[in-house]
Amino acid sequence: MTLETVSTSKAHGGTLGVYKHESASTGTGMTFSVFLPPQAVDGAKLPVLVYLSGLTCTHANVTDKGEYRKACAELGIVFVAPDTSPRGEGVADDADGAYDFGLGAGFYVNATQEPFAQHYRMWDYIAEELPALLGANFPVDLDRMGITGHSMGGHGALTLGLTYPEKFKSLSAFAPIVAPGQVPWGHKALGGYLGDDRAAWRSHDAVALIEDGKRPAGAVLVDQGDADGFLVEQLRPELLDAACKAAGVDLTLRLQPGYDHSYNFISTFMEDHIRWHAERL
Amino acid sequence: MTLETVSTSKAHGGTLGVYKHESASTGTGMTFSVFLPPQAVDGAKLPVLVYLSGLTCTHANVTDKGEYRKACAELGIVFVAPDTSPRGEGVADDADGAYDFGLGAGFYVNATQEPFAQHYRMWDYIAEELPALLGANFPVDLDRMGITGHSMGGHGALTLGLTYPEKFKSLSAFAPIVAPGQVPWGHKALGGYLGDDRAAWRSHDAVALIEDGKRPAGAVLVDQGDADGFLVEQLRPELLDAACKAAGVDLTLRLQPGYDHSYNFISTFMEDHIRWHAERL
Repeated sequence: MTLETVSTSKAHGGTLGVYKHESASTGTGMTFSVFLPPQAVDGAKLPVLVYLSGLTCTHANVTDKGEYRKACAELGIVFVAPDTSPRGEGVADDADGAYDFGLGAGFYVNATQEPFAQHYRMWDYIAEELPALLGANFPVDLDRMGITGHSMGGHGALTLGLTYPEKFKSLSAFAPIVAPGQVPWGHKALGGYLGDDRAAWRSHDAVALIEDGKRPAGAVLVDQGDADGFLVEQLRPELLDAACKAAGVDLTLRLQPGYDHSYNFISTFMEDHIRWHAERL
Repeated sequence: MTLETVSTSKAHGGTLGVYKHESASTGTGMTFSVFLPPQAVDGAKLPVLVYLSGLTCTHANVTDKGEYRKACAELGIVFVAPDTSPRGEGVADDADGAYDFGLGAGFYVNATQEPFAQHYRMWDYIAEELPALLGANFPVDLDRMGITGHSMGGHGALTLGLTYPEKFKSLSAFAPIVAPGQVPWGHKALGGYLGDDRAAWRSHDAVALIEDGKRPAGAVLVDQGDADGFLVEQLRPELLDAACKAAGVDLTLRLQPGYDHSYNFISTFMEDHIRWHAERL
């Protein structure tokens, strides 16, 4: 698990680093960023928040535009932003180069379908390899790890948080795809990566996971802009709300008036999410 | 002065907009961003801070990465980020396509040398046309306008602030080029745009302007990272410090330990600069 440092730069009193490594999960190089707050000194082990990005993003989008560093520096949170898919020579992409499947659109699953099964193993990467890598190379306390994300990354955060509550102790999401089994983005991605058997999709659908008895470690925070162009067709937070109500899951769902699907929305509410996780980690 | 709205998006309770217009100064289309804080309602006229970007940037870099919106929303400041040069068909570039001259490197001067004289008129654009455009189209109080910027944009902020103290009532800079007449970036840019007569350069050199009797409207704040790779050869804040001391200009020059020349540095100290301007506008 050798880590190559791409860059480090002081920011908000801490250190923002970008790192590369050869991933055993995906069989490709993978890049991610880590913000270490100023509390990362003298052997202190700090709580860590993993942020999963949305369609088309690399690690860089939230790293540059997320406005998470001031709050992380204040609260002593390590912030980690991985990529959204394997990349590189020999990694299959959508046949038409669409933005919502293939490169930049790994959907945080282990693909079973060809030609994706070899490299598209983002579920294992986020659930297993990345935490181990963080524990081995950074001053993080893996017993205090939270997860969040945006859109496709919100889907990833919810499904991972519901499946591994003992691993992800706090959970939130920005404008997540809450029920990929019921929306076009999800049909395309889960069909393409997992095949036509919809039973297999339920493990990668937050609403289905809750219906099937999975429970998060604690309360869940979801922010959603009401001017988000994907709200009605792709995101459908009301489905998550209904599933949580039926199952007794403590969901705080906030419909934010006037906000769209962009980093303008994410960066506005990022501090609230950092505080949400800090209180629980 | 017709303005085309490229995009608007809610952010931090306000509105982030990107606009295009045909500039009379440059004879090209020009793009800029405006953040209107939530106080921009009911006919209120708000103080405005113009941020000039550095080499290679467009309006978008600081717009996305500057982390200015939360403080502007709190303090009721309109934040404006113009481009760094004219662009488009027929706009001359550096013959070798270098990053530090031509496109993305207008240096906030009115060029007198061919083939740049026709379009490279960023001095007039920032000093005259942009304020008029803002006054005509946005809820800004032009009697409460400040200016700041980074690197080449810090140079622009200092030279404009020193030349027009009645126009720019507050002044700060991040890692500015303080004496282009004494450093390689400046030699290339001022030589290329203004010609070999170094007397003409003095109007576009903050240190020379102070030596020649120009004074800012009030105190000046400059932040500079001490791990900035351009510090010793290109930026040389000690020259500004000496000129201000000799002239009795109230300069707060802060050498920030460990910070480099990137947006990680800018975004860390942006809030301080917003507060500096808000107190003076």
